[in-house]
Amino acid sequence: MKAEIISVGSSLLKGLVENKNAAFIARELTSVGINVTQAVMIDNSKEKLLETIEKAEQQADVLVFTGGLGPDDDDIVKTTLSEHLDKPLVLDDDTQNRIITYHKNSDLIMPKNNQLQALTLLDSIPLVNVTGLALGMFYQSDTHTYILLPGPTDELKPMFTEKAWPLIIEHLLNGQVVSTKLVRLFGLTMAQAQRNLGDILVSDDTTFIEIFPAGLEIEVQITARGLDADEVHQLIAKAESEIEKSVAPYIIGYGDQNLPNIVRKLLKEKELKITGAESLTGGAFLSELSSLFEAGLFFDGGMVTYDESIKKEVLGVDEEVIETHGVVSAECAFEMAEKALEAFGADLAVSLTGAAGPSSLEGEIPGTVWIGVAVKEKSTFAKKFHFGYKRNQNREYSVWSAFNLIRQVLLDEEIESIIYKEKVKKDE
Amino acid sequence: MKAEIISVGSSLLKGLVENKNAAFIARELTSVGINVTQAVMIDNSKEKLLETIEKAEQQADVLVFTGGLGPDDDDIVKTTLSEHLDKPLVLDDDTQNRIITYHKNSDLIMPKNNQLQALTLLDSIPLVNVTGLALGMFYQSDTHTYILLPGPTDELKPMFTEKAWPLIIEHLLNGQVVSTKLVRLFGLTMAQAQRNLGDILVSDDTTFIEIFPAGLEIEVQITARGLDADEVHQLIAKAESEIEKSVAPYIIGYGDQNLPNIVRKLLKEKELKITGAESLTGGAFLSELSSLFEAGLFFDGGMVTYDESIKKEVLGVDEEVIETHGVVSAECAFEMAEKALEAFGADLAVSLTGAAGPSSLEGEIPGTVWIGVAVKEKSTFAKKFHFGYKRNQNREYSVWSAFNLIRQVLLDEEIESIIYKEKVKKDE
Repeated sequence: MKAEIISVGSSLLKGLVENKNAAFIARELTSVGINVTQAVMIDNSKEKLLETIEKAEQQADVLVFTGGLGPDDDDIVKTTLSEHLDKPLVLDDDTQNRIITYHKNSDLIMPKNNQLQALTLLDSIPLVNVTGLALGMFYQSDTHTYILLPGPTDELKPMFTEKAWPLIIEHLLNGQVVSTKLVRLFGLTMAQAQRNLGDILVSDDTTFIEIFPAGLEIEVQITARGLDADEVHQLIAKAESEIEKSVAPYIIGYGDQNLPNIVRKLLKEKELKITGAESLTGGAFLSELSSLFEAGLFFDGGMVTYDESIKKEVLGVDEEVIETHGVVSAECAFEMAEKALEAFGADLAVSLTGAAGPSSLEGEIPGTVWIGVAVKEKSTFAKKFHFGYKRNQNREYSVWSAFNLIRQVLLDEEIESIIYKEKVKKDE
Repeated sequence: MKAEIISVGSSLLKGLVENKNAAFIARELTSVGINVTQAVMIDNSKEKLLETIEKAEQQADVLVFTGGLGPDDDDIVKTTLSEHLDKPLVLDDDTQNRIITYHKNSDLIMPKNNQLQALTLLDSIPLVNVTGLALGMFYQSDTHTYILLPGPTDELKPMFTEKAWPLIIEHLLNGQVVSTKLVRLFGLTMAQAQRNLGDILVSDDTTFIEIFPAGLEIEVQITARGLDADEVHQLIAKAESEIEKSVAPYIIGYGDQNLPNIVRKLLKEKELKITGAESLTGGAFLSELSSLFEAGLFFDGGMVTYDESIKKEVLGVDEEVIETHGVVSAECAFEMAEKALEAFGADLAVSLTGAAGPSSLEGEIPGTVWIGVAVKEKSTFAKKFHFGYKRNQNREYSVWSAFNLIRQVLLDEEIESIIYKEKVKKDE
């Protein structure tokens, strides 16, 4: 089955907004074997839209439209499609009532053509817009399927996932059972993941496995189709076990929760508080922590000790440690984490110190970073990383690596290549 | 003049990457009156590409290609275009040498078809890739212009700006003088900017004015075309003065430097050091500061005092102040800024305290934020803001508003609705 995505809007062609919708829809459709053969962005011109629809009908079975559902004169998708299919538009009363109520409550002037937003093709299935006003639509002719979605991404995504997706499965996949699972990876590049997973990424009729970058993490997406839940469950389990064989050391979790959210959940469950003392990352770790939902449950505060003087005079790192070992050292990382643990009364403390770049620091090449962890009444350790030469990239990798270390500590996982404070002391 | 953008790559149609290139190119071309009438994403299929080229030639004068210039078998743009135009490909020696050297130095295996990356059409102008390997191309037939750019955005952007842009001006705009100026705004929404600027945004043949969102800021882009530099200079000055009349209170600067970078420049010039004590923003302000180029020149460190206990016990905010006025207060903001100024030995300190949301704090609705500023040996003041109900959006607005306050302080601008510490004391 083939699909084409048609995005309508002059703002796209003037470069005012990026077309994030096409990538989102393409990923979802591809995962169930519907191949997107073309995605096109066009202006709000009726003539152009008609021409694009006619062409798309020759090449694809499913036409997905984004944008052009609003109340303005140039929101022409519904009227053009109605004309093209010779099918009248009818008013969806629920949506019309919602639109009237919305404008009443918000003191906004209701656009003259607001009815446009509440129209849907006769015999179509209207798609309710839970985060906006314009109604979407799912319509099947004898030959083609037409899915109309709104332009704003925060309206399009929930409408697609909650309203359109079940209809796609029911009508286009003959009601097969479809299920998706994400395996999350951290610590390798897309190219490495591609190599490690190799043959697993070849998809067949029943199982689709593809990898997607998700910030610094990688999502391995497994989608399975089958006649019943059992079959699908088994297909996913099989794929999962193959993935685990290939990339076990890099798996950080399952589902759509990223590393900070995984750590958040563990901290909340264990009722632990965390703090941090940051040098090269300058607050990025603390900022990420505090942005999490219910941050107050596990976070009280922390310190940014960018300059050496602040490490010593405000945080209280032993001057001798810095003089002997420098700030890019396990010893400095130990001290920073322990002093932060104490000052902020936490159960866990992270420290980040290193050479962010672009220049070297204490003879260490840019990208050399020590991350320290102090666990209250347990242990203090540090791990050395080499990231790269790009300053802001180093900062990001450092923050994510810190979250990963904390995740491993909270799960009692064995962590490779770490140096314990006690060990160093004994060796001295 | 009309242009069409053709993006080639299966990763686009599988949703692995978003097509950021189209928006970038569309913005640039639109600014000089070249209308982008369509942007299309297609697979790496030769047949499909040929069909797309033929169709585009019927509708547009300029065809801009992105992607498909790499060394793989499916990188078909150059060979397909060569076949279509019946024009042979020739090897660009400089690029070929760069490719060989690159692979030698990096120990990477050179792809078999690496030559593909160094090919260009006979009689074309090659576009050097300064951040990657694949050569771009600018070619004019009797009827059309073909611009070939690489897929990775960090290769495409510099190639477009540095190499393709001068050729576009020379060959497509008859060597007119083209100049662009950005006026940066902060503190109003896109809809407000649109309203305030109103008629100014109507473009004519010589001047193009459009607004673009740039994070929380807005860029008003003026592009003028004319026969000589003087004429263009005058056109830009005229547009600028109209813009200034309409949105003067919101102008934060000119050019591509955002608020943190504007503050960075001012701090560096004045040789001042800055610090911060953050509550609801939890390190986001400090993180932004420390991410700036040469941050060590003006930043030593700061503190995240998320919980009340940390404000009192670690930062040293007077307990009585918090008991009397609460943490969402001017008085708490004064104290936090002054204590941070002292502890971190800075010339300027910012404090951020408020109700991030989703819940209210001390009876203040989510989005109520006090930002304090302490200037060494000068004054301490605070300003109250109401942002909104979305937690992470509040944090972003708070950070940007703090940078704006600091900008105003550093420029000795008058700041509306601020409360000075002395004034409060006298009134008590």
